[in-house]
Amino acid sequence: MNVKAINTDGCAAGNRPVAADGPGSLAELFSPRSVAVLGASANPERFSGKIVPTLLRQGFGGAIYPINPARTHIAGLPCYGRLLDVPGDVDCVVFALAAEHIEAAIAQCAQKCVKLLVVCSAGFAEQGDDGGVALQENMLRLASKAGIRVLGPNCIGFANLVARVCISSAAAMSWPDIPQGRIGLVSQSGGLGLASILHAALEAGIAFSHIVTTGNEADLNTMEIARFLVSDEHTDVLAMTVEAVRDIDGFIGVLRAARQARKPVVILKSGRTELGKVMAASHTGALAGSVEVFEAACRQYAAVCANDIDDFYELASMLGKLRHSGKLAQDWQPGKHCAAVSISGGHIGLFADHGSLAGLSFPEFSTETLAAVARELGFEGNFQNPLDTTARTIGDDGFWGRCVEVLLADPSIHVVVPIITVARSYEPAVRDFIDIARRSKKIVIVLWAGGDFEGEAKRLLAQSDIPVFRTPARTAEALRVLDSYYSSMSTQHAEHESTCIDEARSRLAAQALQNFASVSKASLSESQSRLVLGELGFPFTGQQLAGSMDEALAAAGSLGYPLVLKADHPDIPHKTDVGAVFLNIRDEAALRDAYGRLEQRMREIAPGKGKVLVQPMVDVGTELIVGVHRDVEFGPVVLLGIGGVFVEVLQDVAIRKAPIGREDALSMMAELRASRLLDGVRGQRPVDKEELAQLLVMLSEFAHANAEILKEVDINPLALDKRSGRLVALDALIVLDDAAGRKDQSGPGRAAQGSMYGS
Amino acid sequence: MNVKAINTDGCAAGNRPVAADGPGSLAELFSPRSVAVLGASANPERFSGKIVPTLLRQGFGGAIYPINPARTHIAGLPCYGRLLDVPGDVDCVVFALAAEHIEAAIAQCAQKCVKLLVVCSAGFAEQGDDGGVALQENMLRLASKAGIRVLGPNCIGFANLVARVCISSAAAMSWPDIPQGRIGLVSQSGGLGLASILHAALEAGIAFSHIVTTGNEADLNTMEIARFLVSDEHTDVLAMTVEAVRDIDGFIGVLRAARQARKPVVILKSGRTELGKVMAASHTGALAGSVEVFEAACRQYAAVCANDIDDFYELASMLGKLRHSGKLAQDWQPGKHCAAVSISGGHIGLFADHGSLAGLSFPEFSTETLAAVARELGFEGNFQNPLDTTARTIGDDGFWGRCVEVLLADPSIHVVVPIITVARSYEPAVRDFIDIARRSKKIVIVLWAGGDFEGEAKRLLAQSDIPVFRTPARTAEALRVLDSYYSSMSTQHAEHESTCIDEARSRLAAQALQNFASVSKASLSESQSRLVLGELGFPFTGQQLAGSMDEALAAAGSLGYPLVLKADHPDIPHKTDVGAVFLNIRDEAALRDAYGRLEQRMREIAPGKGKVLVQPMVDVGTELIVGVHRDVEFGPVVLLGIGGVFVEVLQDVAIRKAPIGREDALSMMAELRASRLLDGVRGQRPVDKEELAQLLVMLSEFAHANAEILKEVDINPLALDKRSGRLVALDALIVLDDAAGRKDQSGPGRAAQGSMYGS
Repeated sequence: MNVKAINTDGCAAGNRPVAADGPGSLAELFSPRSVAVLGASANPERFSGKIVPTLLRQGFGGAIYPINPARTHIAGLPCYGRLLDVPGDVDCVVFALAAEHIEAAIAQCAQKCVKLLVVCSAGFAEQGDDGGVALQENMLRLASKAGIRVLGPNCIGFANLVARVCISSAAAMSWPDIPQGRIGLVSQSGGLGLASILHAALEAGIAFSHIVTTGNEADLNTMEIARFLVSDEHTDVLAMTVEAVRDIDGFIGVLRAARQARKPVVILKSGRTELGKVMAASHTGALAGSVEVFEAACRQYAAVCANDIDDFYELASMLGKLRHSGKLAQDWQPGKHCAAVSISGGHIGLFADHGSLAGLSFPEFSTETLAAVARELGFEGNFQNPLDTTARTIGDDGFWGRCVEVLLADPSIHVVVPIITVARSYEPAVRDFIDIARRSKKIVIVLWAGGDFEGEAKRLLAQSDIPVFRTPARTAEALRVLDSYYSSMSTQHAEHESTCIDEARSRLAAQALQNFASVSKASLSESQSRLVLGELGFPFTGQQLAGSMDEALAAAGSLGYPLVLKADHPDIPHKTDVGAVFLNIRDEAALRDAYGRLEQRMREIAPGKGKVLVQPMVDVGTELIVGVHRDVEFGPVVLLGIGGVFVEVLQDVAIRKAPIGREDALSMMAELRASRLLDGVRGQRPVDKEELAQLLVMLSEFAHANAEILKEVDINPLALDKRSGRLVALDALIVLDDAAGRKDQSGPGRAAQGSMYGS
Repeated sequence: MNVKAINTDGCAAGNRPVAADGPGSLAELFSPRSVAVLGASANPERFSGKIVPTLLRQGFGGAIYPINPARTHIAGLPCYGRLLDVPGDVDCVVFALAAEHIEAAIAQCAQKCVKLLVVCSAGFAEQGDDGGVALQENMLRLASKAGIRVLGPNCIGFANLVARVCISSAAAMSWPDIPQGRIGLVSQSGGLGLASILHAALEAGIAFSHIVTTGNEADLNTMEIARFLVSDEHTDVLAMTVEAVRDIDGFIGVLRAARQARKPVVILKSGRTELGKVMAASHTGALAGSVEVFEAACRQYAAVCANDIDDFYELASMLGKLRHSGKLAQDWQPGKHCAAVSISGGHIGLFADHGSLAGLSFPEFSTETLAAVARELGFEGNFQNPLDTTARTIGDDGFWGRCVEVLLADPSIHVVVPIITVARSYEPAVRDFIDIARRSKKIVIVLWAGGDFEGEAKRLLAQSDIPVFRTPARTAEALRVLDSYYSSMSTQHAEHESTCIDEARSRLAAQALQNFASVSKASLSESQSRLVLGELGFPFTGQQLAGSMDEALAAAGSLGYPLVLKADHPDIPHKTDVGAVFLNIRDEAALRDAYGRLEQRMREIAPGKGKVLVQPMVDVGTELIVGVHRDVEFGPVVLLGIGGVFVEVLQDVAIRKAPIGREDALSMMAELRASRLLDGVRGQRPVDKEELAQLLVMLSEFAHANAEILKEVDINPLALDKRSGRLVALDALIVLDDAAGRKDQSGPGRAAQGSMYGS
């Protein structure tokens, strides 16, 4: 929506400049100095009766104007019959009436030069009927004309906990004096944002800077709010719940901006399986369901995908606290340099288990550290990492802090996790932790596994920069996520790496692609696909095209047995499925037999002038799949999988949005579940990872640059030649966009193209 | 400990019979009518000062005798100088003094005919020094002589919430009036049992029948307590935290008894990675780390392994409630017949995701159900499963119950999950759910995702038989576990299935094994192993043994090329690793060359008369590994894995404690991550699962019957012959027990055994 639209009613709003925090900015919109509530009820049990009391309870310092012609006072405040009766300026109006009154309301808002209209009511486009859609469109048109921004409809408001503006009917808002934190939360779903998440987070002692629910997103949408939160100085971490991503560029833009600002992003995605449910197994395209692409894009831009509601706010809180205390700016690998300490052996065992399952490492303590532990505890023992101090320390309030300090001083330790279970008093230990974490550049994370997470100790921890978790598994998972965040942030970006692209090769490949595409139907034949991808550097086996038995025999003479025969025809993209591949041809008799049967098969399936491809049979080891798939939402993505049964049965595939850089390519290899195969197992040679990275980078650039023509690329397999130990590509398929400006060329076109190649 | 030991001090205790709930039983021990506290402190901040107030606060109805010579009264009760000064009988004594006073205390306990001594103090064997161990052994000896059972030392007591006897200094015990529930919890770790778990469960509204912490387990141990809880009528589910299982037979006995009583068992295992850390990848033996065996045994006896602390009590609570309401006796598959309903689309999306990830199914509603939904909601919509009723229903307190009832009536639905987020009032819906669940044989599980899980609604749900979860992922995981529980309970058992064992074959195989073992060293040669396992029915390829080049050529003549040559020598168990296998020998020249090189290799590695095994080269598809490993704790276990890179890189192996039945064998196949390979993919034929099951059952019986001789069996690979489509075994290795009555036969023994086979 264009907020600079001329406001016909004479307010200044329409002409205000849109600076990040200037007038007209979201920072200003979400900090109104005066709020009117249209349809405020005097009954605090009703949703429309909760808004004014919530504003008051959460400490709104500006003017509040309940609008209700049937009342003189609501919640002790004077009540007005109409918005126009309000004496002063009104920055924000909350619409809590039935949907059909929206047009009249906007007319009054326009006269009062209102800046923000919060529409909590339902009955708009979410109903899915024409009436609701029309009402919403009309509302947007009128508001736009008047320069009014709209939040909703069908949202449950927002809470600016910095400026103490809490406009919502959510039950969690009845919490007394909701504290201000550093998590900026935007959620399309009000049920998630202001019901589940806010309430559960408050119980866990976790607080927010802003919470915005966007509902139908007629005007203000998730990505616009997210951009504001990334730029907001009171916000250290962006938390988003995402259903469908409607605006991919906006989404990527938010992730980029957050990365630039070194502000972590945590995402709770719902609807994952609905989006990804049409996943089949046999082609690379099908392996890139939109969910996988979504998660790959998040990984690429260092955003964290949470699994469940509690992970979501706990991870956001951890990242926000660590950023606020400057610890994300360090270069730690906490998961690989982890120490823990507890008086409960049971908990030490559980945490070691979950740490190990999450891939964490507990380095051995140095001799100095072990001596210091014995000194601080006052007794000798078989101390190791994680450290079980045993029940002997139970009466000693100070040993917690002394131990944490000693362990943090060990050079091989980046994070210390005190696991609190039973103690006579928790407060002294917590005060020590806070003091130590403030003085140290390293990280302290509390696993509060005991009872009694209440009172002063809880309050102190909540206000501190020390992340707190409640169970061993969640703590271990958080450390894994933290490691992955540090690692993503240190990964070089494609955008800074175009130097490793061979421009000449890229141009030649693009030229070849365009030539073929101009005359081809849906797919290129294998030999055409090889030609294009060969320009990019893919190391294909030798090949010869044969149009007759004699040509095939001649090819055999120069290539040598054993051989492979395949149909080379753009109408036969999946050759194996239709029996158009003959492997392991060992002599002339076998070749004659295979050629005859293949020719016959091709006549049956795709009559026309397709040729036969003669290739040497290569004895291969580890098989990879490399490909490109154009996602409907995210555009071209590049894929790497372990081939054969692995890709089929386990769907072991790494995905990135194109283009990618070398580091991205290497991280794709590391991400595969069967990545150990790349290092060589069972006597197989290792894959040259630098060569593979170079191929992936080239392919991703090519896919990005030719996104309008390319639908799918499939190099399957790209395998290890057992003899040479080098990568060799055995087959390739390029699928073109259905409608890339080409006509249906079923008859003559196909013939022309078949013969074109042979010439 | 023998509780029938003669009591020399004249109490009747030593002669009492040990019935499940009679005198002398644990039921009686944990229901004392009088409790004395040795070393009771008047300072309620001290651990020794918390015990008397806790007994009072939690409603103990019997006599309480604080013993402290320095006080006249503690917590308002008369205080005694010595235990012997107490006027009445004392059933239970709590020892809260320093460890060195234990002997004097036991002497007094013996005189007072005390039945149970609870030793909370530390300073015994857990210190790891001689003094502590001696003190504990002495304590046990004296107590045993006096017929006194001991809980601890180094425990933090027990809570019998049925009889209201709560003897503990744990902070969670300060919770006012801890409710009685149906979970019986036994935990060696006090920090886990009475600190973390009790407190977190209380916060979640989950209650227990008994909680017992066992500490050092000098006398009463986890398995004895567990057997009592399985027999206890007030306990519907057994929850155990397990560190190391010291008594495997006891453990299996508990699981068997619980299964017999149809009482679910939930286990939280700690120290998993420490136990399993010496896991290497290349041999089947190494794949059966004790942890994997532990989990396999749990699965075999329908016990549920929890992952984290919160799963542990939540799953126990769910299973206890469903058992109490008779719903575990039904034949449901809730995970495959799941419905959900919410007013929040965001939550519906999240739950659908997690359901899908956990393998749940949401069947389509019937036409009748859809019509009934529209009727009950009062409006039409695009209703589907899971059901999003949208914000239109937000003011309607009754729609929740009406919807749940309608969905439960659908024949394809076994469980309905209402997802509660925002509501004007929760109580009416909760009352409806309770009423409906009571009337229906089907299952209602509440996902309470909203705020405000407090007050009357929470109290009602906690007391009801309706399980409650707080996040989508945990609810979905619980339904997966529930399905798996129903399925385990319906699986036939090995013990009832001995009919499918071919006794004659088993005898022949055992005879062959014993013959070889009587003259062999550590391993049998391949040909010997084949002979033994062939008797069990394993379908080996043809083979001929050659002692010379001429014999090899003759073998080739009868077997036909291509061939495989292998060393057949008990001192070369891992032939491939040392270059003693030659594959794909295609003609006589290659055979001569390979034979010469193999003979040379064998001379280098293991000089002696080993022979050469000549086998046809088989073109195989899917490769399996079948084996036996004797676990140090659990005895022989049988393994099934997908071979080749799968077992190596992914460690995709199913394990069961031997012996197993057909159903166990089939469930092993289903459990493999790559189980789809067994059904045939990419043009491969499927594996004959009945044949494979029969082989696994036979092998497991064989391993069980010959457990003293066998250390390891490895049939690798058992593969699909591409030509015949049948299973064929290509290699086998039997490793013998190191000390099965055989001497070291390094020199002449080996020679004798080499020649023996040739004769």
